[in-house]
Amino acid sequence: MSLIDQLFGRPLASHEEGMQRVGVGMGIPLLGLDALASAAYGPEAALTLLIPLGAQGVAAIGPLSAVIIGLLLLVYLSYRQTIDAYPTGGGSYTVARENLGTYAGLLAAAALLLDYVLVVAVGISAGIGALVSAVPSLQPFTLPLCLGTLALITIINLRGVRESGLAFMVPTYLFIGCLFVVLVIGLGKVLLSGGQPSPVVTPPALPPATATMSFWLLLHAFSSGCTAMTGVEAVSNGVTAFRAPTTRNARRTLTAIIAILALLLAGIAYLAQVYGIGATAPGQSGYESVLSQLIGVIVGKGPFYGVCIAAILAVLALSANTSFADFPRLCRIIAHDDFLPHAFASRGRRLVFSAGILVLAALAGLLLIIFGGITDRLIPLFAVGAFLAFTLSQAGMVAHWRKIGGRAATRNLLVNGVGAAATAVTLVVVLVEKYRAGAWLTLTIIPLLLVIFLKVQQHYTRVRTETACLRPLDLTDLQPPLVVVPVRRWDLLTHKALRFALKLSSEVYAVQVGVPEQTDDLRAHWEAFVAQPVRQAGLLPPTLVTLESPYRQLFSPLLTYIEELKRQHPGHQIAVIIPELVEHRWYHYLLHNQRAEVLKALLLLRGGPRIVVINVPWYLHA
Amino acid sequence: MSLIDQLFGRPLASHEEGMQRVGVGMGIPLLGLDALASAAYGPEAALTLLIPLGAQGVAAIGPLSAVIIGLLLLVYLSYRQTIDAYPTGGGSYTVARENLGTYAGLLAAAALLLDYVLVVAVGISAGIGALVSAVPSLQPFTLPLCLGTLALITIINLRGVRESGLAFMVPTYLFIGCLFVVLVIGLGKVLLSGGQPSPVVTPPALPPATATMSFWLLLHAFSSGCTAMTGVEAVSNGVTAFRAPTTRNARRTLTAIIAILALLLAGIAYLAQVYGIGATAPGQSGYESVLSQLIGVIVGKGPFYGVCIAAILAVLALSANTSFADFPRLCRIIAHDDFLPHAFASRGRRLVFSAGILVLAALAGLLLIIFGGITDRLIPLFAVGAFLAFTLSQAGMVAHWRKIGGRAATRNLLVNGVGAAATAVTLVVVLVEKYRAGAWLTLTIIPLLLVIFLKVQQHYTRVRTETACLRPLDLTDLQPPLVVVPVRRWDLLTHKALRFALKLSSEVYAVQVGVPEQTDDLRAHWEAFVAQPVRQAGLLPPTLVTLESPYRQLFSPLLTYIEELKRQHPGHQIAVIIPELVEHRWYHYLLHNQRAEVLKALLLLRGGPRIVVINVPWYLHA
Repeated sequence: MSLIDQLFGRPLASHEEGMQRVGVGMGIPLLGLDALASAAYGPEAALTLLIPLGAQGVAAIGPLSAVIIGLLLLVYLSYRQTIDAYPTGGGSYTVARENLGTYAGLLAAAALLLDYVLVVAVGISAGIGALVSAVPSLQPFTLPLCLGTLALITIINLRGVRESGLAFMVPTYLFIGCLFVVLVIGLGKVLLSGGQPSPVVTPPALPPATATMSFWLLLHAFSSGCTAMTGVEAVSNGVTAFRAPTTRNARRTLTAIIAILALLLAGIAYLAQVYGIGATAPGQSGYESVLSQLIGVIVGKGPFYGVCIAAILAVLALSANTSFADFPRLCRIIAHDDFLPHAFASRGRRLVFSAGILVLAALAGLLLIIFGGITDRLIPLFAVGAFLAFTLSQAGMVAHWRKIGGRAATRNLLVNGVGAAATAVTLVVVLVEKYRAGAWLTLTIIPLLLVIFLKVQQHYTRVRTETACLRPLDLTDLQPPLVVVPVRRWDLLTHKALRFALKLSSEVYAVQVGVPEQTDDLRAHWEAFVAQPVRQAGLLPPTLVTLESPYRQLFSPLLTYIEELKRQHPGHQIAVIIPELVEHRWYHYLLHNQRAEVLKALLLLRGGPRIVVINVPWYLHA
Repeated sequence: MSLIDQLFGRPLASHEEGMQRVGVGMGIPLLGLDALASAAYGPEAALTLLIPLGAQGVAAIGPLSAVIIGLLLLVYLSYRQTIDAYPTGGGSYTVARENLGTYAGLLAAAALLLDYVLVVAVGISAGIGALVSAVPSLQPFTLPLCLGTLALITIINLRGVRESGLAFMVPTYLFIGCLFVVLVIGLGKVLLSGGQPSPVVTPPALPPATATMSFWLLLHAFSSGCTAMTGVEAVSNGVTAFRAPTTRNARRTLTAIIAILALLLAGIAYLAQVYGIGATAPGQSGYESVLSQLIGVIVGKGPFYGVCIAAILAVLALSANTSFADFPRLCRIIAHDDFLPHAFASRGRRLVFSAGILVLAALAGLLLIIFGGITDRLIPLFAVGAFLAFTLSQAGMVAHWRKIGGRAATRNLLVNGVGAAATAVTLVVVLVEKYRAGAWLTLTIIPLLLVIFLKVQQHYTRVRTETACLRPLDLTDLQPPLVVVPVRRWDLLTHKALRFALKLSSEVYAVQVGVPEQTDDLRAHWEAFVAQPVRQAGLLPPTLVTLESPYRQLFSPLLTYIEELKRQHPGHQIAVIIPELVEHRWYHYLLHNQRAEVLKALLLLRGGPRIVVINVPWYLHA
């Protein structure tokens, strides 16, 4: 078994694709990791903005979470309908493109692609950031740890869909299980104590209020809390990853993910309020995440606390995986429509779209390197892409139901319409709130991506138009080509090349470029070695041409000569036969001037349509 | 004028080589810089080892220098004879090879090549080291400064022989002029003061003696002082760089270089003794080089002092240039004898041996990077190579004169014999003295180089034997090849390729590899588009072959099919016609899978002697 097979698994045949598909149990880790990980940072993000309100801020997290969960359920209902309407995978791109036109589709695609890259970089760096704040001695290794995690996720994804679902099941279910245990114990304690539970570990005291409640502050907190909703689109995009019954499995998976996420968000918000837990200022001494405080007050900081924290870290770091499942699929659909290079549409040896996986890994790796593994500053860019895609996708669904018409469609239209309106409002809020913080960057990159999409499609269309052939094979004027054979000396390479030349044509030119100190002059032997035997065989002997080369150049005199031949013989094809020594070992290539390779490349790039390049290899005995 | 032309100069024709040759005035900077720069570090190296002797050490420098100068004159006489005997360039390699055999020649070559690389790295880092010790704020930029100097010297050398001679004339003659002015003023003051001159600037006091004079200590100092003799071999190696009368110009240049060097060494030693100047411990506070002290005591530390120091720094940093003149010439001679890749023997656009220049720059750059621009630890490796080459070269001359015989030859034999003996003894001293300090590294690298030389020659011999052709062109069995055309769909590329195939042969196989989601099935149109028109034209229609590809591979089914064809048609050549889209811009290559390139490479590497690869290009309209 080769190293490549060990690392990436044996190649899979196309008919094995069915076996690579997943059910609900594996679908949740595969497509839900990103959404579920939001439970760990969504409430934290909102509470951080409420710190200035002191205790009043903690009291506000309940209603805020209720609004976010309401929005989440709306989006859920919308996407459920999308799955039913697009059983072959209805990402925002497909839905917007089919119902609102190409540009809307591409806009959604650009927004999502950018978001996926950001999710990978930010997810990994958040997980590793939490790890190094727990184990400060790892601090100097932040970037290598980030890149190592990225490499791990990349390799797992290159191994295939099933493999990544399997690999991520353990941390995902451990995370869900731990948090539910904590929440249930917490609720039990609240009930038993009549609403006044005493914390096992006292949380940091809430700071005194330094600001008063305002509409803008709440809006700000809301827009930050909305980062919890990224990743919800994954399932509707990845419908084809499920085994039959495909849509039902996809729907159930989406339902399960949203239900778990909503329960986690609600539970965390309620218990934070009851225990009076607020955020602590990040980056300052005494910082402790909301979830860490919550687990501490409910179950204390024993071994179970350790298990919970480890599961949270793992899920944060691995939340990137959802992007790895969806980014290549989205690229594949876009490439299929000619808006991205076709390489994105080829399945690799493990039936995954390897090009997409590698490009995503490269871009996220680049972001991690640029930001040194600390991507806090990228977080404001989040959510803009996701909510833009949400809005376009649901507006697309509204158009879809209007086209279909009828009673059921009207009801569905209402659901998607409310969803579209809600996410559009949220998009505006997020944009306004985050413009200064960096969302403008998103607004620059998305148009750039649009330009790339359109240029790529333009190129493919041009190539297809230019190479299209609607007529049958044209067999007029099938005269043999003129043949040019560049030769260095009389050896077996020249011998083989001349023999092949004589098979092709009766008009052969052997060209020796005069590099006096290196070549043996062929003029001395030509008559005896070539011309005479050819004449005896009843053929026309090849012409020997000797070219001067005062600047010791090989290629330039040869190319000039071929141009001259083309001028003298309009309408003829010219076949250039290049003898080439094939070496057994790569280092032998250092020993020979790569004349054959360079000449081939020059002839292809500059030769023009009448030139054909023929490579006659000569093999050294092994 | 292109950027390349601006940087490296316009290409030169072979007949301009004469104009690129130099006389004595330019020969001194071109080939003598390394030897002359020795005046700046040879005495310093010897005095440093004499520090423990205190004032007694300074007194020893006179006799020591006398021995070294005597040795230098011996070597000079020997090389003068070598120039006369080998007017086409008699490096140690040539002389030892012709007179002592191939192995002796290669041994000398290996020693010299290693020495040249070391000289470049150490010279540059010594110059930059002196610069940053004068301007400490440059300290952090040591490595970039070293690499920048290396790049500068490399570019100047790529511009041609004359250009590098010209560029280095100013610093060389400034250096010589300054040192002579200082020495003459110093001698004048000594005479006027009756042998007791008073220093303008008081030098650091000599440390108290901590050791007593011993034979070994003197030997140690002598072997270090001998580093002053590296570079002497350059002129005899580079005779061909001189204009006519070639040997006379070379001899005069050598005489001038040795005379200047001997005077500088003698002057420095004498004045150091009179003024009581010893070395200061390098790398410790209060360090000041011997030359800096000497100039200070004689002319004070005014503006002229600054000019002198600047010239010394420049010459040290640029002493690397001698290696750049000689290394490529030596490589060229060795490559000519098949012991190094032939690329070393091609003159580049400016008539210099570009490959040698670039390899030298790369190796020296690597050393500089590995050692961070501080190459003190490489200095012990010096001199071993030079003295090994000296000894072999002069032993070779002894054999040469013995062959010639006669009275003049006997006198010459004596000169070379004494030279050989003296340098052999010095070699043993240097080896023993420096073995622990690192000369063992030289003793490991030289055998490695020898193995490489022999392996390279073995390969060239094998290729020449295997491809040699002594019989005339064989014209039996000139049947046309079978032709295989891999096709993707019915387009103009396929059209052009099939037309060319029908020109070559009546037995054509069009092969479509089944990648269901990407190709248009050709079976549907084959009869109408191809088979029928071909039959109508009275030709045999090509066979359409459709290959299954369950693993979505393109190449493997195709190669398997070609193997099968080879099996079925023993003795036939098989021409594979590969249609290829030629793009106008490099970035367009990202948009197309590089199938044609990969297939060409696979067929060449694995196809075997009966395969011929034909490239039919298709050009997009610009």
